[in-house]
Amino acid sequence: MAKYAFGVDVGGTTVKLGLFDADGSVLDKWEIPTVKDNEGVNILPDVAKSILAKMKEKGISEEELAGIGIGVPGAVDDAGTLVGGAVNIGWKPLNIPQQLHAYINVPVKAANDANVAAFGEMWKGGGKGCSNMVAVTLGTGVGGGIIVNGAIITGSTGAAGEIGHIHIEDSEIEECGCKNKGCLEQYASATGIVRLARRRLAEDEKPSTLREGQLSAKAVFDAVKAGDQVAIEIAERFGRYLGKGLAMVGNVVNPEVFVIGGGVSKAGEILLGFVEPELQKYAFPPCRGVRLALAELGNDAGIYGAAGLILLGSNTPQQS
Amino acid sequence: MAKYAFGVDVGGTTVKLGLFDADGSVLDKWEIPTVKDNEGVNILPDVAKSILAKMKEKGISEEELAGIGIGVPGAVDDAGTLVGGAVNIGWKPLNIPQQLHAYINVPVKAANDANVAAFGEMWKGGGKGCSNMVAVTLGTGVGGGIIVNGAIITGSTGAAGEIGHIHIEDSEIEECGCKNKGCLEQYASATGIVRLARRRLAEDEKPSTLREGQLSAKAVFDAVKAGDQVAIEIAERFGRYLGKGLAMVGNVVNPEVFVIGGGVSKAGEILLGFVEPELQKYAFPPCRGVRLALAELGNDAGIYGAAGLILLGSNTPQQS
Repeated sequence: MAKYAFGVDVGGTTVKLGLFDADGSVLDKWEIPTVKDNEGVNILPDVAKSILAKMKEKGISEEELAGIGIGVPGAVDDAGTLVGGAVNIGWKPLNIPQQLHAYINVPVKAANDANVAAFGEMWKGGGKGCSNMVAVTLGTGVGGGIIVNGAIITGSTGAAGEIGHIHIEDSEIEECGCKNKGCLEQYASATGIVRLARRRLAEDEKPSTLREGQLSAKAVFDAVKAGDQVAIEIAERFGRYLGKGLAMVGNVVNPEVFVIGGGVSKAGEILLGFVEPELQKYAFPPCRGVRLALAELGNDAGIYGAAGLILLGSNTPQQS
Repeated sequence: MAKYAFGVDVGGTTVKLGLFDADGSVLDKWEIPTVKDNEGVNILPDVAKSILAKMKEKGISEEELAGIGIGVPGAVDDAGTLVGGAVNIGWKPLNIPQQLHAYINVPVKAANDANVAAFGEMWKGGGKGCSNMVAVTLGTGVGGGIIVNGAIITGSTGAAGEIGHIHIEDSEIEECGCKNKGCLEQYASATGIVRLARRRLAEDEKPSTLREGQLSAKAVFDAVKAGDQVAIEIAERFGRYLGKGLAMVGNVVNPEVFVIGGGVSKAGEILLGFVEPELQKYAFPPCRGVRLALAELGNDAGIYGAAGLILLGSNTPQQS
């Protein structure tokens, strides 16, 4: 009788692991270093060994294990193959269930880390109770994870949910990392907010605390909270871009909720206030019921979502 | 042993019906009038009677029937309920399988007509062989149907795929039918192309055959084929808007193919040539493999798709 599942989140510096019971309560969580040497050839063996050691420590047999879910930083197809490798941990294309099965014979489901984190937020975080949800990660870039009828959408080449690269501004002259110009990420990521701030500050000499010290997304929202008018204008521009972008996404997949996470979201509810009116303004009327919510699981979203791939029996991805 | 299925497409003037074998070949197709009197209360009984008469004519028993698929002009939830009614045929909210079951006891699956037509194009038309597809209907408006992993996406309120109302132009001053300004539909529908043409013609006095006779989307593309330079400029503007809009949709759901149908698409391959470069330009690089194809089933897409709901065992919608 399967009573447990492991959730694994492979990151660039550490691999996070969690042991969950069948209800999705976390019983234990820990980290191991991500050893990227030799094209990261030891990462999955290290994961397997760490899981086997934990099973031994807790007295858990293979029969009691429903399986292992794993989020990895790259596009994963329905067979669990990391189709394009994962450049930031050195991986070439490889089949993840196959590699783990060399060590432990339980069902394995792998998926892209951003999608897995989205799945975690749906299951136990800001999207709890919803089965149609878009997770938006505002970090160095802007990422997305789309869940339809309770399952992650991966798309035909694993690139579904790349909402950071929606074209949103025709007048942009600087290039995005993707080589296009005017992507949402250029305005709504942490670095995008700094760009918006620099541009606003250069427009005139209006006093602002942002003219002193290091510019950052955090500094902008701290200044907003202190009532700084220039900072509020910057946040309004951010909100216009993100609201418009989310409205577009909403017209395509019609979610119940957008769950906003990533470093920028630590600004809290005040951030949502700048996005909400713009989202509602640009949304197609039948899509206007959509809610905005903050992500709740932080860095644990990945291990929750990975365990959820096993415990919720998500029909995507389909490998085992 | 189930050998047959019926596909039904309820339109504003006629109901189209088709009898299909288990492989999805159409054995017979016909139409009955849509009787909209008394809030359309006779429409579903008429459908049931027409199906029962056809079964009698062909000597088909209930046991030989896999079921009835039906496309209706409104949003349908997973239980087969037309949640908001269907204003253009007079229907109030109603449960479609329940109503048909009063006459015939076989599985019934109902879905929105645009989504059903998309499903038909995936199964037997321009998207054949694909399981991730977006169907785009360029008619009086711009409609969309999104298929992910072989299933129609309906969204949380049945409004998924409303790509005609993606915001695409900040400078628009006229209102769309939805009351927003700058929706894709204002440039890429048949009426949108006429608007683009009027605006272009008003810009200068450059000679064009479009200055004579009735302006229409067909007239624009006929003039394009005849080498009319002004018409070509209009088609380029159309292509820029539609290409940019489809690129956004592509970044969200990452389909293999966009299948372009509706009256405007009768212009043929030449139309795709105006859209393709703009789609590729604005698409996120990993999404650039997406193809553009013309719809192939015309007015029969609905009956094919409806039969496909039964014969392909689509997991959406889930009622029976």
